Amino acid sequence: MPLPHGYIDFHEAKAPFFVGIDLGGTSIKVGVVDDLGRPLHRLSVPTEVHRGAEDAAARMGKAVRDAVEAAGLKTSAIARVGLGSPGTMDIRQGLIVAPVNLKGWDNFPLRDRTAFHCDLPLTFENDANAAAYGEYWVGSGRDFQSIALFTLGTGIGCGIIIDDFPIDGENSHGGECGHMIIDPSPDARICPCGFRGHLEAYASALSFVKRAKEALESGAVSSLSERIAAGETLSPLMAAEEAEKGDDLSLKLIFETARYLAVGIVNVMHTVDPSAILIGGAMTFGGNKTPLGRQFLSEIRQEVAQRTFAVLAKKTKIEFATLGGDAGFIGAAGMARLDYRKLTG
Amino acid sequence: MPLPHGYIDFHEAKAPFFVGIDLGGTSIKVGVVDDLGRPLHRLSVPTEVHRGAEDAAARMGKAVRDAVEAAGLKTSAIARVGLGSPGTMDIRQGLIVAPVNLKGWDNFPLRDRTAFHCDLPLTFENDANAAAYGEYWVGSGRDFQSIALFTLGTGIGCGIIIDDFPIDGENSHGGECGHMIIDPSPDARICPCGFRGHLEAYASALSFVKRAKEALESGAVSSLSERIAAGETLSPLMAAEEAEKGDDLSLKLIFETARYLAVGIVNVMHTVDPSAILIGGAMTFGGNKTPLGRQFLSEIRQEVAQRTFAVLAKKTKIEFATLGGDAGFIGAAGMARLDYRKLTG
Repeated sequence: MPLPHGYIDFHEAKAPFFVGIDLGGTSIKVGVVDDLGRPLHRLSVPTEVHRGAEDAAARMGKAVRDAVEAAGLKTSAIARVGLGSPGTMDIRQGLIVAPVNLKGWDNFPLRDRTAFHCDLPLTFENDANAAAYGEYWVGSGRDFQSIALFTLGTGIGCGIIIDDFPIDGENSHGGECGHMIIDPSPDARICPCGFRGHLEAYASALSFVKRAKEALESGAVSSLSERIAAGETLSPLMAAEEAEKGDDLSLKLIFETARYLAVGIVNVMHTVDPSAILIGGAMTFGGNKTPLGRQFLSEIRQEVAQRTFAVLAKKTKIEFATLGGDAGFIGAAGMARLDYRKLTG
Repeated sequence: MPLPHGYIDFHEAKAPFFVGIDLGGTSIKVGVVDDLGRPLHRLSVPTEVHRGAEDAAARMGKAVRDAVEAAGLKTSAIARVGLGSPGTMDIRQGLIVAPVNLKGWDNFPLRDRTAFHCDLPLTFENDANAAAYGEYWVGSGRDFQSIALFTLGTGIGCGIIIDDFPIDGENSHGGECGHMIIDPSPDARICPCGFRGHLEAYASALSFVKRAKEALESGAVSSLSERIAAGETLSPLMAAEEAEKGDDLSLKLIFETARYLAVGIVNVMHTVDPSAILIGGAMTFGGNKTPLGRQFLSEIRQEVAQRTFAVLAKKTKIEFATLGGDAGFIGAAGMARLDYRKLTG
């Protein structure tokens, strides 16, 4: 079986090796990465939340061993494991606290139990910060001193890296920029987290669908209506397809998303002023590969330029992320590598 | 002449010594500080912007020597000088770029010219970040790992310190949280910087006065009207006095300011998640010393609690800053001390 694009054979790999784990509500991705951040092998196992956290920790241990073997390595070749976990969490204490997508795992010592089952030293990090570190290390952030990654999916994830350090925050809530308030009014949109006016309530996939439905209900003419009538489920992907065929409403909704996102981006620029802002996740409308994706990025850049100071508009790069779904485990492995290098001098 | 509160005599001081300079549009404050962050002596000279940047650099050199002598020390006892400068600036290059309040000083190599005139090694920093570092080092932030300081005055300054590091940003625009967008709508208030919807356009002293005038013009009944009719100039201080006498509009404006500020605070909490948020500057309505100041703080805390996650509402401390106008030079001296310690191991 040929290796996927960007993956290398273990004969080319540069030691030491690391394993990254990207824990999600549906699946757990585990990947083996070399010292240059190149993946050797990746596998995915279902999270099976209902089996509980201890069971998952044990299966993560097994998945790590399986991935290492499949990469052609021995476990003794692995210097350290990195685990990116969804929040809420307490990074310093190694706890997963009250995870929305991992019901019943509250206050579980995920760091130490996963380290035990891996039988390897382990670095514990927030999943969004790990993904940001992945892009920072070897993705589209690799040429920058500092970045913020916005991951557009069902929600909006964000991670900030400055000079190799993730902004974890005092309470492990650093980079929760999806929950930045961009509209303080009492009738602002409600975020899935329950608060009003958050960026995520305007620019996530969920809010995209909500805005689309509202527009259709208020009588907007759109080819989306036909597909919904045919039994399809409204989604940003559907809107992208219709926008490419010339549907005005779909294009309007996509541009609106870009402009809301730009507000969040400007706020990060005016708070931490990173060298680059990266946009990743499932909802990039094709990213750099399609004209629509490039239009989306261009709209973001234009709106940012109209809302920030000339020097920042000129110097801050806004680009798509490049690692896709691999960012999480590569970044987790990269953060394990940082700790390994600190500990070994 | 007795020393002001918090100041110490050089006999009690702990070497090494540092000098901090707080450069403003009206005056330049220079203070001598010991290794524990205790000020020994402070003096102030007018900025006299029209005389140009080189002239000011020379006068800062003289002011440093004067302050050192007045503190009872010799220049040879000073390990390093810190200079906090208004923006825009390029911290890495040591330039003041296009300073709004220092007309004609554009693109001046302020770091190197001031170091030359002081004849001492010099650390160059943004004034708001320097003030934040002062509070972090020895002010109300001294017990915290990370803080953000909001300085409420004509504008809104902000500085963020995490683990002894100021968030300067890639383009020296870190901590420009006064220019965070809190209302993205096309009819949002215009900030003095020219953009719409910024926090500063809602919660600064300038915007306070604007909101007050609008309320009075639209017919609000208030004792402010009588004082304006008597020839006084509307100000937050006047509103504080009237609020204390029971004027409803004044109190409403002050609470409104608190709630706008809370939005900016929540956004910083959801971006960098500091241990504490500190509120300083001229517009704190009396701060901890008056019932009104304490009500203002209480309103900020309540609004933040209603807009953020339970764990952050519970754990993030929101307090007044304590160093007042000394924060800038103490912080600049403190940052000089950081560099001195790095350089001397």
